[in-house]
Amino acid sequence: MAPLADRLAARTLELVDIPSESLHEAAIREHLLGLVPPPFAIEYAGEDAFLFARPRRPGVGLVLLVGHYDTVPAQGNLPGRIEGGAVHGAGATDMKGGVAVALELVRDLAQETPGRYDVGLLLFGKEELPAQHSPLPDLFERSRLVHEAELAVLLEPTDLTIQAGCLGNMSARLTFTGVSGHSARPWTAENAIAKAIDGLTPIARLERREAVVGGLPFYEVVTITRLEAGIADNVVPDRATATLNYRYAPDRSPQSAAEYLRALTPAGAALEITGDSPPAAVVTDAPAVRALRDAGDLMFAPKQAWTNVADFTARGLDAVNFGPGSTRYAHRRDELVEIAALARSYEILRRFITG
Amino acid sequence: MAPLADRLAARTLELVDIPSESLHEAAIREHLLGLVPPPFAIEYAGEDAFLFARPRRPGVGLVLLVGHYDTVPAQGNLPGRIEGGAVHGAGATDMKGGVAVALELVRDLAQETPGRYDVGLLLFGKEELPAQHSPLPDLFERSRLVHEAELAVLLEPTDLTIQAGCLGNMSARLTFTGVSGHSARPWTAENAIAKAIDGLTPIARLERREAVVGGLPFYEVVTITRLEAGIADNVVPDRATATLNYRYAPDRSPQSAAEYLRALTPAGAALEITGDSPPAAVVTDAPAVRALRDAGDLMFAPKQAWTNVADFTARGLDAVNFGPGSTRYAHRRDELVEIAALARSYEILRRFITG
Repeated sequence: MAPLADRLAARTLELVDIPSESLHEAAIREHLLGLVPPPFAIEYAGEDAFLFARPRRPGVGLVLLVGHYDTVPAQGNLPGRIEGGAVHGAGATDMKGGVAVALELVRDLAQETPGRYDVGLLLFGKEELPAQHSPLPDLFERSRLVHEAELAVLLEPTDLTIQAGCLGNMSARLTFTGVSGHSARPWTAENAIAKAIDGLTPIARLERREAVVGGLPFYEVVTITRLEAGIADNVVPDRATATLNYRYAPDRSPQSAAEYLRALTPAGAALEITGDSPPAAVVTDAPAVRALRDAGDLMFAPKQAWTNVADFTARGLDAVNFGPGSTRYAHRRDELVEIAALARSYEILRRFITG
Repeated sequence: MAPLADRLAARTLELVDIPSESLHEAAIREHLLGLVPPPFAIEYAGEDAFLFARPRRPGVGLVLLVGHYDTVPAQGNLPGRIEGGAVHGAGATDMKGGVAVALELVRDLAQETPGRYDVGLLLFGKEELPAQHSPLPDLFERSRLVHEAELAVLLEPTDLTIQAGCLGNMSARLTFTGVSGHSARPWTAENAIAKAIDGLTPIARLERREAVVGGLPFYEVVTITRLEAGIADNVVPDRATATLNYRYAPDRSPQSAAEYLRALTPAGAALEITGDSPPAAVVTDAPAVRALRDAGDLMFAPKQAWTNVADFTARGLDAVNFGPGSTRYAHRRDELVEIAALARSYEILRRFITG
């Protein structure tokens, strides 16, 4: 046990110490590609996504281990270090710990007789950027193998639960319009800020909505994330613009989500939807998911965010999130991953795959 | 009469057609300085302020005609034109029409025996900029003559009324602080925008306060002129900053105004006062003001804004606003001054000065 834990910790630290902020991913990409062993061979290679597998066995299900290798910008947390039973540093939990586990597992399996499932490894970048940067649509278009997956396991931080589904992520701009004027005589104008304050009050006070989908409680929330108004200290502004970020539950379609935002729009304000990543289907009762659960006596939880599982379920492929990282450390200055969690996720995935 | 009106209109258009946005005033400055006739001589010359007068007569009161020659940026309204009984164009009402009237009056008086008052002409720039740019503090420090004025008449747009006093103009920044977090899990954060919306609601709903000072009704108002928050569409922001612009009545001191803003500050928000131009004393019963009123059978009105009369009254000198412009056209794209108003203000000022 201890040698495995040490090996996973060392690999995680090695990956953490190769800075790989989105769009600066060449070094980690080359390093990772060099670590995938034969007989695993590349089936798809794009600019920022690579799918490896060994020759398929007829009638055997394919499980994909999926990890992104980019991180958000470092926050004074590089180089990393091992301390107090954890690997610390940028990306430790999101998701170099997960990539290290998937990589070591594939390297070990390469030297063994294949077990219950065939295994593929999908590594990709640009995950921490807006959806239009994603290399996955191209992968889904050009790879045949990806469409054979019985289950994709994304090694995102999940606190060692199976986080199923994911929320949709819709952004919109809400514009309030008034009439500009001199701030010494504001009664001759209509202050767009005052209109925004009135119009946004009910939105700011919305309670989260619980939506139980596939037996899991998702929380649907609308957050005002930006607000901009004003051109000078002495001018009553005629325009105020708010950004709404709407995380919608998997019981809604994008159309239903857009209708909900339109219904929230205050009288006199204009709504423009600026982005949408639809939610993922909640997959908990597929045979491979039950096998993963049983391999670790795992709990199911909802993924209270958006992840790439949505890319798979949108194409009719089953996918869940399961990884060693802790959700509460993602994107934080004090990011870390517990070494015991690295080892535990390795063991569970190994048991799941080998059967 | 018609020749006077034509002459004033032509001079106003001539001044309008020399662009003189604040900080680009060299051309208009040189032009104006060349138009002041002997025996008017320069008593004070700074970079952006010039005071002319002819030799003082003992025991005779001094009236200063005061005009600024800069304008706000043009808005597609240059060159100017004469149409429909008005001069149209940037600065026509604020305040090249007033400068033209003062200049023509001084040029005419230069050829006559002096009347009831001695007359000085004060021309200056950078008036449309924040107070720290004003050349007037230096003038008050270095000119002896300015301190001899019995009355300063600022030819600001006043709709041919005597607009006495002026409001104070205080600006402040109000900062609301929360805790940042992921917009998919906003209950783990505290949204500074939501705090700002709650905290600003009572301020946005404040009614204007009427304060009668010197018999005139001033309206005291607090306007939220700017609001800024947010760093990304998917981050709950930990900071929201509002700008308050407070026009306070002449019945308050700057200290009282600051106390009022502090009392308005919502719990948990931080207030920083970023600028203050104190109000002017309301001068309506000085002999020279009564003489001006009687010369034109004028009404008194409050100056519902801040003007340079405050620079004079702060130094114990009487000052009022009286000019041909129309307040409602100041700083507007459709700026204009009525030619009849140019002629009428000329006649009133001439009767006032000559007695």
